[in-house]
Amino acid sequence: MSLLVVGSVALDNVETPFDKIENALGGSSTYISLSASYFTAPIYLVGVVGEDFPKEHIDLLQRFGIDITGLEIIEGGKTFRWGGKYHYDLNVRDTLFTELGVFENFDPKIPESQRNPDFLVLGNIDPALQLKVLDQIESTKFIVCDTMNLWIENKLDELKEVMKRVDVLIINDSEARLLTKEPNLIKSARMIREMGPKYLIIKKGEHGALLFSEDKIFSAPAYPLESIFDPTGAGDTFAGGFAGYLDSTDDLSFENIKRAVIYGSTMASFCVEKFSVQRLTELTKLDIRERFLEFLELSRFNEK
Amino acid sequence: MSLLVVGSVALDNVETPFDKIENALGGSSTYISLSASYFTAPIYLVGVVGEDFPKEHIDLLQRFGIDITGLEIIEGGKTFRWGGKYHYDLNVRDTLFTELGVFENFDPKIPESQRNPDFLVLGNIDPALQLKVLDQIESTKFIVCDTMNLWIENKLDELKEVMKRVDVLIINDSEARLLTKEPNLIKSARMIREMGPKYLIIKKGEHGALLFSEDKIFSAPAYPLESIFDPTGAGDTFAGGFAGYLDSTDDLSFENIKRAVIYGSTMASFCVEKFSVQRLTELTKLDIRERFLEFLELSRFNEK
Repeated sequence: MSLLVVGSVALDNVETPFDKIENALGGSSTYISLSASYFTAPIYLVGVVGEDFPKEHIDLLQRFGIDITGLEIIEGGKTFRWGGKYHYDLNVRDTLFTELGVFENFDPKIPESQRNPDFLVLGNIDPALQLKVLDQIESTKFIVCDTMNLWIENKLDELKEVMKRVDVLIINDSEARLLTKEPNLIKSARMIREMGPKYLIIKKGEHGALLFSEDKIFSAPAYPLESIFDPTGAGDTFAGGFAGYLDSTDDLSFENIKRAVIYGSTMASFCVEKFSVQRLTELTKLDIRERFLEFLELSRFNEK
Repeated sequence: MSLLVVGSVALDNVETPFDKIENALGGSSTYISLSASYFTAPIYLVGVVGEDFPKEHIDLLQRFGIDITGLEIIEGGKTFRWGGKYHYDLNVRDTLFTELGVFENFDPKIPESQRNPDFLVLGNIDPALQLKVLDQIESTKFIVCDTMNLWIENKLDELKEVMKRVDVLIINDSEARLLTKEPNLIKSARMIREMGPKYLIIKKGEHGALLFSEDKIFSAPAYPLESIFDPTGAGDTFAGGFAGYLDSTDDLSFENIKRAVIYGSTMASFCVEKFSVQRLTELTKLDIRERFLEFLELSRFNEK
């Protein structure tokens, strides 16, 4: 098994109603890789940072077995920085600043030895860059793609090209509606699947997630969290757990993809319990398994 | 088994983006009774109508075995009328008019022979009236109560009294947040349960429903409908299927209450497929069983 992740690596300043943190490790490929590392290996991370990127963050990624051969460090450059503030209900966030730094000219280069990964996860970056990644891949079994409203609004043509070439698209409910201009989520899902991806996952935050294939739908519950500390990275963490689990099992049946959605949800439910990637650095396999079983109990009923 | 329903009986004018209908049979106790009639008998309906209430509606209720001894018909009076218009996304509706008619002075009188029902369903009416009903009940095994934002905003003291005396409260997510001023639904649910009801069901429309007991949570999926014809009465229909199924089984275990939530969701998913109570008058037990099994398939996964 092997899993290639391409996305952003960032330094985040995050403020919530409870606390704040500065220069925390962030970025889509960081969350994806750490989350996937609980399930599979090797994981190849491709991204870019500046000379200011703290060595402790590099050490952390390596401690989790993540291969950073593909992480470019630009001399004299500045790492992508994002600052955000969450409000009381934690569903609303303001971006306080975005300093692209070296990410502005990110031109993903996949090391030659990493061009045949079993799994490829395209983190949430400009679909034009996602296409550049796809063009460098020689062979792979399964491609997972994340995106966001910014690209739906500004890079729709490129995104549609990407969608034709991936196995799973992961978006949230408001993005699905934005992409299709269709308020009914089930209809919207059908329209998106017709654009290319074999499977579609629509994340609905506190309402769980939906998985769509050509002829099946799976409804995954949300973990009932009484408090969410920091929602940053939850979507990326979902994608990492989803892809990592699938890669580790080498079973692409719908039944197993359902389990992967639950493992993705499990990892995301941990992610939001602490700031930044902190919770993702202290889990055990037993923690993950126990929460997976809680998800099972939460939605299980029988016909009698 | 026996089930007593107290609520409104109305004539509805409904306009959706697809069609419109006038003088349709409506009202909370109507939907609750019809929905429950697929599961249990006898069903006693207590309500009030005017002399203008069409005989065909009376005939319909009786055809479904509903005992209308407790349905007062006020000579010279006018039946409660409601007019509503749904917009394109069907989550938003405008009330065009409300003519209370005889409902304005509704003073529920439970026939003597009906004061010991196995199940009591308090439809969504003024909690002051719900209290009057409770005061007339001599004994019952299980009380289900529905309410709405109007009473939370205007009759909170009475509603709190009701909540202390019922087994299950059914509300929707925005009402739960309104009642507790707490954005986190899980925290909100705990706060509501502390107000009295042993069980709480929070309906979330297209996102399914949550069932809470003292120490357990059950997450029920929503049926994936590509088109919703008329949402009127869906909440009442849920309550009727929920209570009707439970009454028929005489099993108040959490496992069985979970199934009741799914039967409630099943009936509500049928209700919205056609105008007014129409779909609820043409179902078979097989239709209901098949959809119940679709709900099972929709949310089922296993641990491998």
